[in-house]
Amino acid sequence: MRASARMYAHPASLRRDLLLAQTRASVIGPAPRRHAHSGASEGTERSPGAAPERLPFSRLSQEDLAFFRETLPGGAITDPDLLEAHNVDWLKSVRGHGELLLRPQTTAQVSEILRYCNDRNLAVNPQGGNTGLVGGSVPVYDEIILSTALLNNILTFDPVSGILTCQAGCVLEGLSGYLEEQDFIMPLDLGAKGSCHIGGNVATNAGGLRLLRYGSLRGTVLGLEVVLADGRVLDCLSTLRKDNTGYDLKQLFIGSEGTLGVITAVSVLCPRKPSAVHVAFLGCQTFEQLLGTFKLCKGMLGEILSAFEFLDAACMGLLNTHLKLPNPITDCPFYIVIETSGSNSAHDEEKLHNFLEEAMTSSLVTDGTVASDDTKVKALWSMRERVTEALTHDGYTYKYDVSLPVEGLYQLVTATRDHLGSRAKNVVGYGHVGDGNLHLNITSPGPDPSLQGAIEPFVYGWTAGVRGSVSAEHGLGLKKRNYIYYSKPRPAVALMGHIKTLMDPRGILNPYKTLPDDLD
Amino acid sequence: MRASARMYAHPASLRRDLLLAQTRASVIGPAPRRHAHSGASEGTERSPGAAPERLPFSRLSQEDLAFFRETLPGGAITDPDLLEAHNVDWLKSVRGHGELLLRPQTTAQVSEILRYCNDRNLAVNPQGGNTGLVGGSVPVYDEIILSTALLNNILTFDPVSGILTCQAGCVLEGLSGYLEEQDFIMPLDLGAKGSCHIGGNVATNAGGLRLLRYGSLRGTVLGLEVVLADGRVLDCLSTLRKDNTGYDLKQLFIGSEGTLGVITAVSVLCPRKPSAVHVAFLGCQTFEQLLGTFKLCKGMLGEILSAFEFLDAACMGLLNTHLKLPNPITDCPFYIVIETSGSNSAHDEEKLHNFLEEAMTSSLVTDGTVASDDTKVKALWSMRERVTEALTHDGYTYKYDVSLPVEGLYQLVTATRDHLGSRAKNVVGYGHVGDGNLHLNITSPGPDPSLQGAIEPFVYGWTAGVRGSVSAEHGLGLKKRNYIYYSKPRPAVALMGHIKTLMDPRGILNPYKTLPDDLD
Repeated sequence: MRASARMYAHPASLRRDLLLAQTRASVIGPAPRRHAHSGASEGTERSPGAAPERLPFSRLSQEDLAFFRETLPGGAITDPDLLEAHNVDWLKSVRGHGELLLRPQTTAQVSEILRYCNDRNLAVNPQGGNTGLVGGSVPVYDEIILSTALLNNILTFDPVSGILTCQAGCVLEGLSGYLEEQDFIMPLDLGAKGSCHIGGNVATNAGGLRLLRYGSLRGTVLGLEVVLADGRVLDCLSTLRKDNTGYDLKQLFIGSEGTLGVITAVSVLCPRKPSAVHVAFLGCQTFEQLLGTFKLCKGMLGEILSAFEFLDAACMGLLNTHLKLPNPITDCPFYIVIETSGSNSAHDEEKLHNFLEEAMTSSLVTDGTVASDDTKVKALWSMRERVTEALTHDGYTYKYDVSLPVEGLYQLVTATRDHLGSRAKNVVGYGHVGDGNLHLNITSPGPDPSLQGAIEPFVYGWTAGVRGSVSAEHGLGLKKRNYIYYSKPRPAVALMGHIKTLMDPRGILNPYKTLPDDLD
Repeated sequence: MRASARMYAHPASLRRDLLLAQTRASVIGPAPRRHAHSGASEGTERSPGAAPERLPFSRLSQEDLAFFRETLPGGAITDPDLLEAHNVDWLKSVRGHGELLLRPQTTAQVSEILRYCNDRNLAVNPQGGNTGLVGGSVPVYDEIILSTALLNNILTFDPVSGILTCQAGCVLEGLSGYLEEQDFIMPLDLGAKGSCHIGGNVATNAGGLRLLRYGSLRGTVLGLEVVLADGRVLDCLSTLRKDNTGYDLKQLFIGSEGTLGVITAVSVLCPRKPSAVHVAFLGCQTFEQLLGTFKLCKGMLGEILSAFEFLDAACMGLLNTHLKLPNPITDCPFYIVIETSGSNSAHDEEKLHNFLEEAMTSSLVTDGTVASDDTKVKALWSMRERVTEALTHDGYTYKYDVSLPVEGLYQLVTATRDHLGSRAKNVVGYGHVGDGNLHLNITSPGPDPSLQGAIEPFVYGWTAGVRGSVSAEHGLGLKKRNYIYYSKPRPAVALMGHIKTLMDPRGILNPYKTLPDDLD
């Protein structure tokens, strides 16, 4: 979710501008092949999130500009004021220096652009709504920004199968609005829905709030149209639920963060809009009881369960202190937000009632409250959703978004708290229990590199030790690319590199992102 | 489903034994690289499903046998009687000539085997339960059969998250039994469950009866361990619902039919066992009404709908005539089987009742009957499940398993009926409406190559014309590999070929399968 990483800021990015200044002028020339970065970091201790040296891509020439202006009349933008918002990420933590923004309207134009860039060895930064949190959506140096903003048409919607086909630049909220009129919903929902593009959602394999119920985009995306690095158009825009004819190429592009191709159109399977939504806010004495509640809930709410989120007492303290939000129930070490979505309100209420009775009788849950009217539903949800905001008032926040085996989800919070002791102001945990996705946050009065140094090897190492993921839903982008080995073995990463080389031999697509610098 | 293609037999396979005899002796030598087939077919008109010429892999030597016997004590089998069942497919339509069956028990042994085979240029046929329907699961020539049968241990099951981890050779039914004891189910169910291996299910991206509700294996498989062609072990055996660290390599192996690597272990997300199951058998006057019923049903049954299947009046005629199964309702042109699975029987019954009332009131449905006790549920399901059996009594059957946009699902049946006229004995349609998956069957008194000639370009062309898939759930294997262009554009198939070359440069893994002969 967008809001949950608002304060994410990497000290690396502070030093990167210096590096930029050094390298922008110093690296010129041909040698277009992708290769492992070396040089600039020698002898200096640099954060793994810092930008590597600029690769020797061509510089934009007047001839290039003339070509793009002819290809995209009115859609080749060089005005620095207009470029500004496309060069800086949503968190304002990464700044690129792109000098050209291209806004194609058709797949054919995207194809022409990439063919030209590949021939000329010009690097390209594909950009959707620019809501990413890991520095993947803006240029690192002077990459050409290829925006999907004008690829924004809905192509087809079939109310029998629920399959939507649209261009990649459609804004998620726009698609949701379009579908809701027809009694359907998108299978994903994100905090950034007002800005993010469906193409970017797919390119980053966005998770969000509905994953527990509707699964990941790997299951709901049925087809993609993609333009490859050399301009070839790969038409896998199937609208079929089943198709076992050869390898499923579209999966390569889901979650590859624009490094293997530019997604230009998407087909997606959309669920029917639920007619009833209920929310329960519950308190537990231990995390084991919270897990017991989750298990009971999966059995008794089964098909109507649409969210199972949690926050700890430290989060509640921040909500009370900084946002003056009162605890709607008695104080407990852990709180749960359960949401149900179904087609029959009376049935859902009864199921929820039976479940709550059982949870209370068996002492899994200490206290709780339930809502079904919109206002109270929103109020209960805000106890979970506004934790991020409360954190911003508590000081500088180090934020981590990890996937862990669900049984051990909270152990990392406890272990980090023990590990850091008094060095941290607060160590809090919240997140998506249903997806095994923990948001671990550590606050301090201000930026504190020594605190970060105490957190980062520890948290990533702990996550790796239980076979977790150091990026549950945000991707790797620029900032996390070198942390990939905490979650993927070296042969797997090497194979990813071979696939990158196969698909994009000159490495022009979103360079410096996703794959680590020391790729074999 | 296994049963639905029992009679699938391709005349191509009749001629293949002759080709085998010609080529087994005639092609010898080195040149281990994968290349497009040429030669044997020149000047002869051969079915696209026939085997291409044997590629110049090494022949098994005494030294090879000695190595395998030492590596797998007791697990290297050469007895022709024991090999027989592994050389012939379930449909008895394809016969290979493998001389060695290997039954490893550990991933390390699979790794040793493949490293050796790759070095020696020995071709390998990975084999699960050998229940495939497209000739993908048996050798074509003398490939070494690498069986997953003894890789049959359940590794872990977590009843909180519902995530199961097991070796690839676990039989689906065994896994289902194990899970049901713990109140969970596998997310897939197939007619072949008593024999098929979970590794083979994943390698073929098996669909089956629960896809409508739980989605495809691309969403439910969370991790894989795979041994690559050169013996390297790729450990992507994650047990996480969310993991956005780099490209999702496991997707490459799902549905690649053993041509890119050998799956040795799987982790899969399992749903809770539903406590209530209901079945309705309904009749409609037109296919448009059937589609209207589907739409209504998705809205009113929503989260409890677990199957929406159909059969036409011609199928009912065959059930009546050949199996003496009486129609449980009044005669109609179309019949629907709806199944609900939920956590509260009373709620499900009420939803079903409301839906049926609405469907009848709005004249979508003409007649219907509902069952909730086991015996009647099974009886109603048999009207759908036993169509295949009824067809076997009607003569020789040409069977097609295609995905189509759901609105036009039945048009292909009508069009085929019109196209064939009196040449066919019966043209019938049934299948999974919810998945857009049609089983089209054409009967004739006996094998009739001229009838097949009238069907095959027509059906595949029609399917391609509406952007359908010529293989919904069975894969391509040997028999359908050359039909891939009906469903995938040439650049996509070329890219599949490049991926094959990247992953398996010598082409030793399941040669002659999945990819077409004329690969660039």
